Amino acid sequence: MKSTRKEHDFLGELEIPNDLYYGVQTFRAVENFNITGLTLNKETEFIKALGWVKKAAALANKDCGVLDPKVADAICFACDQVIAGKYNDQFVSDLIQGGAGTSVNMNANEVIANVALEHLGHQKGEYQYVHPNNHVNCSQSTNDAYPSAFRIALYNKIEEFCVILAKLQKAFAAKGEEFAKVLKMGRTQLQDAVPMTLGQEFHAFATTIGEDLARLREVQKLVLEVNMGATAIGTKVNAPEGYPSLCVEYLAKETKLPLTLSPDLIEATSDTGAYVQIMGTLKRAAVKISKICNDLRLLSSGPRTGLNEINLPAMQPGSSIMPGKVNPVIPEVVNQTCFYVIGQDLTVTMAAEAGQLQLNVMEPVIGFAMFTSLEYLGKAIQTLIDKCVVGITANEKHCAELVMGSIGIVTQLNPLLGYEACASVAGEALLSGKSIHEIVVLERKLISQEKWDEIYSLENLINPKLINS
Amino acid sequence: MKSTRKEHDFLGELEIPNDLYYGVQTFRAVENFNITGLTLNKETEFIKALGWVKKAAALANKDCGVLDPKVADAICFACDQVIAGKYNDQFVSDLIQGGAGTSVNMNANEVIANVALEHLGHQKGEYQYVHPNNHVNCSQSTNDAYPSAFRIALYNKIEEFCVILAKLQKAFAAKGEEFAKVLKMGRTQLQDAVPMTLGQEFHAFATTIGEDLARLREVQKLVLEVNMGATAIGTKVNAPEGYPSLCVEYLAKETKLPLTLSPDLIEATSDTGAYVQIMGTLKRAAVKISKICNDLRLLSSGPRTGLNEINLPAMQPGSSIMPGKVNPVIPEVVNQTCFYVIGQDLTVTMAAEAGQLQLNVMEPVIGFAMFTSLEYLGKAIQTLIDKCVVGITANEKHCAELVMGSIGIVTQLNPLLGYEACASVAGEALLSGKSIHEIVVLERKLISQEKWDEIYSLENLINPKLINS
Amino acid sequence: MKSTRKEHDFLGELEIPNDLYYGVQTFRAVENFNITGLTLNKETEFIKALGWVKKAAALANKDCGVLDPKVADAICFACDQVIAGKYNDQFVSDLIQGGAGTSVNMNANEVIANVALEHLGHQKGEYQYVHPNNHVNCSQSTNDAYPSAFRIALYNKIEEFCVILAKLQKAFAAKGEEFAKVLKMGRTQLQDAVPMTLGQEFHAFATTIGEDLARLREVQKLVLEVNMGATAIGTKVNAPEGYPSLCVEYLAKETKLPLTLSPDLIEATSDTGAYVQIMGTLKRAAVKISKICNDLRLLSSGPRTGLNEINLPAMQPGSSIMPGKVNPVIPEVVNQTCFYVIGQDLTVTMAAEAGQLQLNVMEPVIGFAMFTSLEYLGKAIQTLIDKCVVGITANEKHCAELVMGSIGIVTQLNPLLGYEACASVAGEALLSGKSIHEIVVLERKLISQEKWDEIYSLENLINPKLINS
Amino acid sequence: MKSTRKEHDFLGELEIPNDLYYGVQTFRAVENFNITGLTLNKETEFIKALGWVKKAAALANKDCGVLDPKVADAICFACDQVIAGKYNDQFVSDLIQGGAGTSVNMNANEVIANVALEHLGHQKGEYQYVHPNNHVNCSQSTNDAYPSAFRIALYNKIEEFCVILAKLQKAFAAKGEEFAKVLKMGRTQLQDAVPMTLGQEFHAFATTIGEDLARLREVQKLVLEVNMGATAIGTKVNAPEGYPSLCVEYLAKETKLPLTLSPDLIEATSDTGAYVQIMGTLKRAAVKISKICNDLRLLSSGPRTGLNEINLPAMQPGSSIMPGKVNPVIPEVVNQTCFYVIGQDLTVTMAAEAGQLQLNVMEPVIGFAMFTSLEYLGKAIQTLIDKCVVGITANEKHCAELVMGSIGIVTQLNPLLGYEACASVAGEALLSGKSIHEIVVLERKLISQEKWDEIYSLENLINPKLINS
Repeated sequence: MKSTRKEHDFLGELEIPNDLYYGVQTFRAVENFNITGLTLNKETEFIKALGWVKKAAALANKDCGVLDPKVADAICFACDQVIAGKYNDQFVSDLIQGGAGTSVNMNANEVIANVALEHLGHQKGEYQYVHPNNHVNCSQSTNDAYPSAFRIALYNKIEEFCVILAKLQKAFAAKGEEFAKVLKMGRTQLQDAVPMTLGQEFHAFATTIGEDLARLREVQKLVLEVNMGATAIGTKVNAPEGYPSLCVEYLAKETKLPLTLSPDLIEATSDTGAYVQIMGTLKRAAVKISKICNDLRLLSSGPRTGLNEINLPAMQPGSSIMPGKVNPVIPEVVNQTCFYVIGQDLTVTMAAEAGQLQLNVMEPVIGFAMFTSLEYLGKAIQTLIDKCVVGITANEKHCAELVMGSIGIVTQLNPLLGYEACASVAGEALLSGKSIHEIVVLERKLISQEKWDEIYSLENLINPKLINS
Repeated sequence: MKSTRKEHDFLGELEIPNDLYYGVQTFRAVENFNITGLTLNKETEFIKALGWVKKAAALANKDCGVLDPKVADAICFACDQVIAGKYNDQFVSDLIQGGAGTSVNMNANEVIANVALEHLGHQKGEYQYVHPNNHVNCSQSTNDAYPSAFRIALYNKIEEFCVILAKLQKAFAAKGEEFAKVLKMGRTQLQDAVPMTLGQEFHAFATTIGEDLARLREVQKLVLEVNMGATAIGTKVNAPEGYPSLCVEYLAKETKLPLTLSPDLIEATSDTGAYVQIMGTLKRAAVKISKICNDLRLLSSGPRTGLNEINLPAMQPGSSIMPGKVNPVIPEVVNQTCFYVIGQDLTVTMAAEAGQLQLNVMEPVIGFAMFTSLEYLGKAIQTLIDKCVVGITANEKHCAELVMGSIGIVTQLNPLLGYEACASVAGEALLSGKSIHEIVVLERKLISQEKWDEIYSLENLINPKLINS
Repeated sequence: MKSTRKEHDFLGELEIPNDLYYGVQTFRAVENFNITGLTLNKETEFIKALGWVKKAAALANKDCGVLDPKVADAICFACDQVIAGKYNDQFVSDLIQGGAGTSVNMNANEVIANVALEHLGHQKGEYQYVHPNNHVNCSQSTNDAYPSAFRIALYNKIEEFCVILAKLQKAFAAKGEEFAKVLKMGRTQLQDAVPMTLGQEFHAFATTIGEDLARLREVQKLVLEVNMGATAIGTKVNAPEGYPSLCVEYLAKETKLPLTLSPDLIEATSDTGAYVQIMGTLKRAAVKISKICNDLRLLSSGPRTGLNEINLPAMQPGSSIMPGKVNPVIPEVVNQTCFYVIGQDLTVTMAAEAGQLQLNVMEPVIGFAMFTSLEYLGKAIQTLIDKCVVGITANEKHCAELVMGSIGIVTQLNPLLGYEACASVAGEALLSGKSIHEIVVLERKLISQEKWDEIYSLENLINPKLINS
Repeated sequence: MKSTRKEHDFLGELEIPNDLYYGVQTFRAVENFNITGLTLNKETEFIKALGWVKKAAALANKDCGVLDPKVADAICFACDQVIAGKYNDQFVSDLIQGGAGTSVNMNANEVIANVALEHLGHQKGEYQYVHPNNHVNCSQSTNDAYPSAFRIALYNKIEEFCVILAKLQKAFAAKGEEFAKVLKMGRTQLQDAVPMTLGQEFHAFATTIGEDLARLREVQKLVLEVNMGATAIGTKVNAPEGYPSLCVEYLAKETKLPLTLSPDLIEATSDTGAYVQIMGTLKRAAVKISKICNDLRLLSSGPRTGLNEINLPAMQPGSSIMPGKVNPVIPEVVNQTCFYVIGQDLTVTMAAEAGQLQLNVMEPVIGFAMFTSLEYLGKAIQTLIDKCVVGITANEKHCAELVMGSIGIVTQLNPLLGYEACASVAGEALLSGKSIHEIVVLERKLISQEKWDEIYSLENLINPKLINS
């Protein structure tokens, strides 16, 4: 057997090493697109989704009578192999590519055709029996097959991401419980405000992450609408009657996802609104997580000249010069990953805006941006949980001292003394360095020690009752 | 009567012109924040919402027994005046301001206090009877009153925006009907693809705008959750028992909006996730509208050396030097407004990420960004409808000639002749300049004239049937 | 005299109120573009620059013999009036507009024509004597006149901005001097690092602002290249021989700026690179100023539960509920203005990328973004200087206590004791709460009290000498 | 010999496989930071720069007498090996990492220490002889060593990028020459404007790229300023007298770059302004290149229903369904890469703004963003040159026909006939479909055929002379 085979397309003929399952068009794509070095084979969910799409199309084509059952069955066999991950290494095109995904689609068509050919006892490249375009791509175009596969992969990657995000929510909630009795000073505008508990603060982190999760779950559904059967531009040219809905039914069954057919296939073929929306929502999560990491770094600042309310687990020596320094390296790496995601949201925005007429040719970079963002941020969150949140401890005594030494606790006396009297007490405290207790109870005798104890009990500070006489 | 009155806060005393209803704190705000020159008084929805918030608080405070009914009633009277727009000119603080909205909140407190005072027969500034902080702001903080009012205003401004957006959808849908029989060439990657109708193209614009509308309607609901009663940081300090839910009930009744109380008031007080989400969705609409305007400009390019498929209404001479030139000025101004909105989405992102601990102090610039974006884009869309979309006409004959002269129509023959034979025909057409008909029917005689007529009938081009023998 | 006059363009005839100096095309622009409500008349530098451009063109046209000297002189007279600001209220088109600035250019042409007409004893609208297009716009197109005027205005607005920025640099430098002996703890990653002075910190702010200033001064020069004479697309069609360089010479003389003619007029007519560069540099300044404001807010956090190293001047009561609270409202408003500028940088990016073929039609929104950014940020910086920086005071004693109580000062002992021994001391201090002095001198007796005093003298902490035995 | 060695830091002890040159701190970094999978070893310029930095420091330390010459020499030997790329595989930390680059710095310190140890006849891990912190990192901190190395690497990567960009400029200039006589229609706002040549259009591409190149060359110099000797925060703590300038001298000599020492080391240690500026300038190039690619795609649109003025080389079949379709895949992939770069500019902006007090801890993601942007865009540009620009051909005849059939050529008659008469001709042409020649010469006889021929000669269309009688 020869070590190469000849393949041609309308640009000419190429020698393809015979061990490769992909063919001439994938070959050209590899030559044409050498940008990131990050290739399709690391996106296994996408490869799997391409297998599902091609299988569903083959099944629908068989039912519609436009594909010989023997050929259709061989294609299905090949798709199952691809879905099982057996040919991941044959998916070689760069994630950022021209051609609106044609190279990815042809990569799948060629690999599946050649696996099917071998299954049928033919040799790779004998496309007269199973042809990448005429058979594997039958009733399809890149413009429906590629985005449909992309959407399925995206749905599943968001699913994985949401599982991790839910773990973060749970980790914060657990800390919220753990710190439920740790009294500390609340701060607004970085200025001392009024007391709260550390548990409330961490519980709020859990709440806010829970909201991001809920929003992601909502927008995730947007990609369940696919445009199989649209073919080139949504007019269904060259697709047999009944094929679109049949194909989507098969696809839903294979993927176990409640996929539906786009009601306006013309619109669906050029629209990238769902990606902008999802990426915007992922950016929202990044913004929120970045804010939380900023807070964790602030609250653990010190140890002696910062807030020092909490301790993050020490993960590595913090300095090559300053002995004993331990830095909040985990929140820091998460912040940076969030900035990456926020940047990629802009990339998606630019790409979406650049769509023209019946297609958005920039989908590959949208895929790149969304896949890397989900992956990097997912890993960063898992790191945040494992190497930071679960190990956080509170400096309970220090927190309490800060509260009782603060001026902000005068706010609790507003209903009793009025805003202006309290402002006067606050002003004296600020100038003299005295405590509120000293001024209010001992010097000005504005309230009794008993009233003070009632107001500033842990219970009342955590769940303030209005005490006004 | 003297022309000024004296007011003081803990920074000292100021002379306030007696015709002003706002007081010392607003006065300081005007001095401190002189950035954009765009002041609160142009945001009448926001002023109205402040009136509702203050009224609901007064009613709840009265019920809770922490506000003298007479004072509460006077505050309610004053709020009604403010809601009716009678004191819009007294709302003078710059939209971009420090202090997390304290100046806006105090502006409202002071105006309402003074209107109430006059109503009760007192003079402005006699705050012993109705005090901006002790009475009007009773059981409130800037940190709940300001964002609650902002959210109500935002909801109502999105509502106005959605009404305009729905009109755009309808205008495109009407054009979709009008152009239902106009055959034209579809294009992908700016290259000739396969035939479609101009009606399908405009119908797709309607569909895609409809989706943006649906998404906006979804996210609009996020701001129906308010944090009244949270006071300073969400611990409800200084709010009477039962006040939060009572206040939100009154607020819902006044505004006629299904408002609910945030379940986690600590989280709600610092969270800006809803704004990021809404602004991201508004950005999505901007991205989509910008893409449509790009298409309108492409389709109307020419008249002689461009696509020239449609004509936009001529709105003004297009050039100071080129006679007869008419430019697509309306889509152009819409594109630019979309770029403004996309930029402001980034402003909101930055501001949201900058929140620290128990508050996001950057809310005013978030408000600025969202209010201006909704207003400018709303006006741009209305302009697009009135001065462009409704007047678009089709160059039907030219469109049809482009289709029949194209090479792309060979795609329709794939099922009959196979991809490779069609590629060969396409190649010859490309080199020779001949039409597909000439090669396929007259020269190569691959199909009969009858079959040609069947395939290339208007009916089949618009709703292609698979014809494969 | 009638109260209106009739004017026509090739779209038809309109009645123009006779008191208006602008004509039919400006009228249409006002009707067409109603987006921001921010109109040309607030951009007085731009109006002045339009006057200069039109005057220089008239002078060059006269020299080239294509404009009757009498007409040219009348135009020059009118331009001088416009430059003097006498007709600012006649410049009415919205800053965001379609048509690539045609409306602005025609607004100038019409106003100047009518002022010239009256000067010559004619009535407004008698364009047979002085015509907006044939005479005022002679040898010009919007595509050279508009960007040339924009560039001159931009240069002058950057100039104003740089003057303010230089004042900020100076204000920080003065504080650097004032605080030269205030010892404080340096922090990296929000963790205690090693000692420094507050003077060094403020001096660094001055240095960094100085660098931004230098960069702005560099990029400012990019807009000194103008494309007068390019006319429609850079081919100089309809401009007389020699006109381009002559016109630029006159323009340089009038504006007193070293303007030069673009060497490639085709490129210059569509290029917006200079705007992207300048806006990117302005964004750089915004990023840096935002970082400084973040630092000011951090350093003044407290007063009791934060860093509390410095005090910002109290500008207004900080809370409607918390008595005595004073917030860093000035840095906060500056941060928000910086976020606005960063957002507008994206707007400029989008607009620049959207240029097509021989022109970038999105220049108006670029102008809007740059003008508002320069104005808002300029005002914010002036506010920062006046209401914050000059009044900052240091809590010198507190700063010193933080230093000597810190663990970070152990770093100074590295050369004497080695990194690992120091790490051990640091570790004990962290666990026990003891000071470094206690462990090193009193307990472990690793160095003598004399050596300690030498190392930890103010002089040595500020300008550390390597002391290694 | 055992297969592992024990190493410890102050968090405890770890077993390190003995074949590894890196040690315990790098080990922890690998465990802590698993985000992108893109590790230091692909950034060979950065590794080389770390070698240079460590070598220069060792030489300066030797001169200053703080490092034993034997140890210093061994470190220099090891650095030379690292510079030569022999240990690239030992640089394993993820590019996005917490700790402000400490892990990268320690990775270098550990590898160099162990290579030096072996060179001296010791075993890996016998740090008593050559210690990663005490010796390799002597007189340094991560906060000076890491950014200095980063800056050198950045300079050299920009250098590589500029070489490619210059080739693009040259390729466009060559096409400018080639197409110097190809007459075509210029377009503004996608509407027919006036004639020009295709050569002028491509020459303008060359000019504009040349300007980007010049700007990059300017900003590239900003990173020639390094902060060696600043140590922890810029106070030079633990660096011997004279070391900073000596170290920079050595570094300049080793790298052959004109490096200088930052005049304000405090400022230099936290400042990231140069990165914002450079990335902004790289974004500028991306914006400009994206615009050019948009133009290439527009100009080659068709072949039958688009502009079809030029042909891009066919690189791959353009469709899986449409035979004969060839797409502009190379410009498309370049556009997408530009969007990636624009997104990463935002990432750098966010990271720069997030710096706090004496350090910007987000530098690693800045490095990630800039390195990947330079690499991806560099590859994309090389692809654009090789696979697109050099093979572009012109459809000369079609271009000429478009010109003479256009209405825009009436502009040339303005000086002869006046703007209004020309507008009337244009209007008739638009309505009737007639050519300008037909109306002006044959029907209205406004000018003679001879005059027509003079005005519309190729020579006059390319270099228009003002012909006004």
